[in-house]
Amino acid sequence: MTAIRAAVAGASGYAGGEVLRLLLGHPRVRIGALTGNSQAGQALGTLQPHLPALADRILEPTDAAALAGHDVVFLALPHGHSAAVAAELGDDVLVVDCGADFRLKDAGQWERFYGTPHAGTWPYGLPELPGARAALRGARRIAVPGCYPTAVTLALFPAYAAGLAEPEAVIVAASGTSGAGKAAKAHLLGSEVMGSMSPYGVGGGHRHTPEMSQNLTAAAGEEVTVSFTPTLAPMSRGILATCSAKARPGVSAADVRQAYAKAYGDEPFVHLLPEGRWPATAAVQGANTAFVQVALDEAAGRIVAVSAIDNLTKGTAGGAVQSMNIALGLPEELGLPANGVAP
Amino acid sequence: MTAIRAAVAGASGYAGGEVLRLLLGHPRVRIGALTGNSQAGQALGTLQPHLPALADRILEPTDAAALAGHDVVFLALPHGHSAAVAAELGDDVLVVDCGADFRLKDAGQWERFYGTPHAGTWPYGLPELPGARAALRGARRIAVPGCYPTAVTLALFPAYAAGLAEPEAVIVAASGTSGAGKAAKAHLLGSEVMGSMSPYGVGGGHRHTPEMSQNLTAAAGEEVTVSFTPTLAPMSRGILATCSAKARPGVSAADVRQAYAKAYGDEPFVHLLPEGRWPATAAVQGANTAFVQVALDEAAGRIVAVSAIDNLTKGTAGGAVQSMNIALGLPEELGLPANGVAP
Amino acid sequence: MTAIRAAVAGASGYAGGEVLRLLLGHPRVRIGALTGNSQAGQALGTLQPHLPALADRILEPTDAAALAGHDVVFLALPHGHSAAVAAELGDDVLVVDCGADFRLKDAGQWERFYGTPHAGTWPYGLPELPGARAALRGARRIAVPGCYPTAVTLALFPAYAAGLAEPEAVIVAASGTSGAGKAAKAHLLGSEVMGSMSPYGVGGGHRHTPEMSQNLTAAAGEEVTVSFTPTLAPMSRGILATCSAKARPGVSAADVRQAYAKAYGDEPFVHLLPEGRWPATAAVQGANTAFVQVALDEAAGRIVAVSAIDNLTKGTAGGAVQSMNIALGLPEELGLPANGVAP
Amino acid sequence: MTAIRAAVAGASGYAGGEVLRLLLGHPRVRIGALTGNSQAGQALGTLQPHLPALADRILEPTDAAALAGHDVVFLALPHGHSAAVAAELGDDVLVVDCGADFRLKDAGQWERFYGTPHAGTWPYGLPELPGARAALRGARRIAVPGCYPTAVTLALFPAYAAGLAEPEAVIVAASGTSGAGKAAKAHLLGSEVMGSMSPYGVGGGHRHTPEMSQNLTAAAGEEVTVSFTPTLAPMSRGILATCSAKARPGVSAADVRQAYAKAYGDEPFVHLLPEGRWPATAAVQGANTAFVQVALDEAAGRIVAVSAIDNLTKGTAGGAVQSMNIALGLPEELGLPANGVAP
Repeated sequence: MTAIRAAVAGASGYAGGEVLRLLLGHPRVRIGALTGNSQAGQALGTLQPHLPALADRILEPTDAAALAGHDVVFLALPHGHSAAVAAELGDDVLVVDCGADFRLKDAGQWERFYGTPHAGTWPYGLPELPGARAALRGARRIAVPGCYPTAVTLALFPAYAAGLAEPEAVIVAASGTSGAGKAAKAHLLGSEVMGSMSPYGVGGGHRHTPEMSQNLTAAAGEEVTVSFTPTLAPMSRGILATCSAKARPGVSAADVRQAYAKAYGDEPFVHLLPEGRWPATAAVQGANTAFVQVALDEAAGRIVAVSAIDNLTKGTAGGAVQSMNIALGLPEELGLPANGVAP
Repeated sequence: MTAIRAAVAGASGYAGGEVLRLLLGHPRVRIGALTGNSQAGQALGTLQPHLPALADRILEPTDAAALAGHDVVFLALPHGHSAAVAAELGDDVLVVDCGADFRLKDAGQWERFYGTPHAGTWPYGLPELPGARAALRGARRIAVPGCYPTAVTLALFPAYAAGLAEPEAVIVAASGTSGAGKAAKAHLLGSEVMGSMSPYGVGGGHRHTPEMSQNLTAAAGEEVTVSFTPTLAPMSRGILATCSAKARPGVSAADVRQAYAKAYGDEPFVHLLPEGRWPATAAVQGANTAFVQVALDEAAGRIVAVSAIDNLTKGTAGGAVQSMNIALGLPEELGLPANGVAP
Repeated sequence: MTAIRAAVAGASGYAGGEVLRLLLGHPRVRIGALTGNSQAGQALGTLQPHLPALADRILEPTDAAALAGHDVVFLALPHGHSAAVAAELGDDVLVVDCGADFRLKDAGQWERFYGTPHAGTWPYGLPELPGARAALRGARRIAVPGCYPTAVTLALFPAYAAGLAEPEAVIVAASGTSGAGKAAKAHLLGSEVMGSMSPYGVGGGHRHTPEMSQNLTAAAGEEVTVSFTPTLAPMSRGILATCSAKARPGVSAADVRQAYAKAYGDEPFVHLLPEGRWPATAAVQGANTAFVQVALDEAAGRIVAVSAIDNLTKGTAGGAVQSMNIALGLPEELGLPANGVAP
Repeated sequence: MTAIRAAVAGASGYAGGEVLRLLLGHPRVRIGALTGNSQAGQALGTLQPHLPALADRILEPTDAAALAGHDVVFLALPHGHSAAVAAELGDDVLVVDCGADFRLKDAGQWERFYGTPHAGTWPYGLPELPGARAALRGARRIAVPGCYPTAVTLALFPAYAAGLAEPEAVIVAASGTSGAGKAAKAHLLGSEVMGSMSPYGVGGGHRHTPEMSQNLTAAAGEEVTVSFTPTLAPMSRGILATCSAKARPGVSAADVRQAYAKAYGDEPFVHLLPEGRWPATAAVQGANTAFVQVALDEAAGRIVAVSAIDNLTKGTAGGAVQSMNIALGLPEELGLPANGVAP
């Protein structure tokens, strides 16, 4: 079998580093060009010290010349940059965008939350959603979901798909700091985040909100509004999404359980926990697996669903590779760790 | 001025240790007997190494003889033990119970959540609630609120007191591990909790739920149901409570702001943040201050209020000393740190 | 190719869990019996939640019947238990002992530090040591090194093997809490270890001291004394070993560099960093790689060598699998991650 | 009593913030001007959110006008800036410099490590050293020791003062990240430091090395060389210094114990632990206390001493206030917490 030659644009950041870690363990992929902008010319050993296998590789500038000649190009760029890069790559090259640019269908929502013209919509790389695998098979452009939307959608869509929940979801999610990226900012210093929990983007301002709403609305068949509060947790990786919605009248705990069992019975990367056990982010560290659990709070009349993912793996790079596997006709699980690095 | 002689029953645990730390900084208190059960006979230096000022003090057994002869007795005992101890102390002794036994008014709720007969109800040590200071003044029995209820009540009661919110609150709170106590349990090992967020007691099972409901119901003048999901965060101290409820029709952001400004304008230990800044638990570490912020999410139609406290200080021992000050007619702020130990 | 059937005795602990995580990624191994003692009968999903691939497997008691019929048996037991278990396994079965029982050559040292009769000495599973691979090839009994001795030996043996250092080593190492195991102990609670560094076993008492001395003495060809101070760091995984010894007269920085380059030039799992970069434990999380760096402090006249490993991977389970690969004639790197999970 | 009016130059950083936290609890001090450079004009509430008591105070530029009219001026500035500021303050103003500029006596050492002309030498603010209190009494210029030198000197000077140790000290110290300051740097991001231990300045390069050597040399009465390796630990605060030196021939464990008991018997802010207990940084969080323990490793022939301090309190701001108290003739312990915030 010939190797699949993969380039990574934005190889110096956290998302790019995780794509590389996974590709290093992928039996069919050969890693080609690695590109960056301000860090072009530097050795990867100083930028991603945890990847000794690539320590001597030098970052090239992110341009068409460097990215040419690959079968797959992963984009791990700041939002707004993917369209221009993708335009220079042929239609036969698989472009997997870890950024936000092509996730939203509604141009108005894009413009409201990002303030720039909408670039378009690509097949959505969350294979667990109904119909998603069909759209990904053979695709040459893939929009990898946001990390929070991955966690929230996997926690809640079965309840909406089964018609069990009222269309108003309340979500509080805790994320590790790697979700905020590698750019040096004072509020992300270790001294500031260790020992501290804090919210941000409260009141509907987080850019992942419309993506969650888009996914849950599609599942429900009606507009689902989302109240989303992200919080920053003192850990490097992981998202714990605590999601709830009022249960529709007459919904029983058994109905809820059944909906989730049906949605996830055959999913290789969603682990629906046995009743009584709840997810912890430590269990999914470095794994492409989402842990999900759900309960019906009878007193409050709400369905409460919780998911745990690694924001960099299932929430970004793992989802990207999983989608790549589908697009290229490879076994979906190829090269992806299902088990976490714990404790 | 004569010193106030204070005893601490349960001096080996986290709550007892924090009571002692605060009393060591209280200019009017002299620390008397320290008691424990299984650890009676041990030096405090091995049990609470952070209190070198008391390193040579020996724990006595928790009994009437040891606790006699004090002006104030703090109880930091497992629930169910306070009534018997208090019964042996005279009516003129101020008994401040950091446990749950005397917090709830509804005996049925107590029995449902704790499975034992209800011991009674004592004046409630959350001075910021309407009418609370009057009830505490001169009191000789005080029930210190639970840590989660302190955080949640301070976040939400102004909205309910002003009639701004629908009576269904959704709360997700993250707590540091000290809230789970000092007993050795495998799931609380450092190896398990570092790098991990996990929920527990999901679906209405947490024992602090009825206490929150009791407080918010009193503020609202109608039954407020609470959907409460606590999560364990990788930090020793701190609670971040993210609370929301649907806004009543016509409520504006200005209404919300005004209600909180009115509730907290004169409170020495509630810091209502300027608009746009949100609380972080690091800022309140070791302090008796609650940081509170609130916003109106217009798109989702919800009031979102967030509070941060130190679960051991404002959430337990600080609230206890603050209430003691009121009960004894001392200045309410005496001996209590308002500023946090950060970073 | 037929699968290699592997059993794990002590599958509920941290070492056993890491052996399983690595075996799940090993292309030639099929996981057979999993055993435990007090936890026999429980599902692995509750004991090792990060391994969803084995969630439904049930722990059997650790006895000859359960362990029979495997090609390899990994022992991850408390010290003192391995000899009896190994005696019941045939000489053709590869027994890889992650415990201490067969590491030391000197029975007197064993008895001094462990207080029980010496069980014997097995081939030592640190392939990077001179002669070690030859002894491991075809072996059917392997003693996996201790985690601290792995880190310290890799940091210092090249200096001793090249005759550059005086035979008195001073070592201060920081370990993550998983090195202390999964048994619930109050001083290992998250509340106690987060935000805290503390030493233990100071003054020569740690049981890993004679093993370090044994390895460095063998490299030096003369008795090397070791002053070893382990410290507990607020992280789950990782060892950072800071090691130094006086440089022999006339030793230059170039001599030192050359000795290490020679020792590690061809080693697949030792990453000698380029000059000026120093190891961090985060970079080796979950990886079987040791990062090593060395410098000559001219003013103090000392060689300072620092290594970083993951105590559970290269320090225990990864070293075990690496040695298994050699013993069974498989490629040494098979199934072992060389790259870390970071950030 | 009239209040002592204190200004803080560099009030936006970690050292400045800790000075303010302590001054807020000092019964004799009134906080005057707060100054900064790039952050002048901002409210302290955004810069030091943990100090709600000062939330509305506005930072002024660091100049003579702002700092005029105070009894005490604390300087918490980058090195190289203190001399110019101090020159503009009258000789009757007490200037307490938390920076490095005036700590070293040897101009050559200063120039070698800092690369700028030597500014001079001020009375050294480590009252526990022999003769230090006398030099501080009435002083109007004080050089606050570095955080590492504070920890290391308190760990080792009694052994040198008593003539028990050979003049070659080996020191490995772990520091929380606040020691590296508040400037945003990528390697100090929470994502990078959580779960990680790493060394820096290895091989004698750290600027605190000559200060340690200066202190130990003074105690020993002969030149003491120092091999110093600092490491960055995943915690916000705290230094654990593990220090050792060869014992002089014939030195017994009792000799060692006696030397430390004599040195620290009457010290209010050094807690020499009972035999068998070792320091942990958590126990001194926020406290001005150093915990010290020492042992004789007979097999290795070394005295091993370990100290734990809070780098921002006893290591910086607490030492500064303690020295201020002495200089101004106040009780040395006034306003300083001796007990830590733990867990």
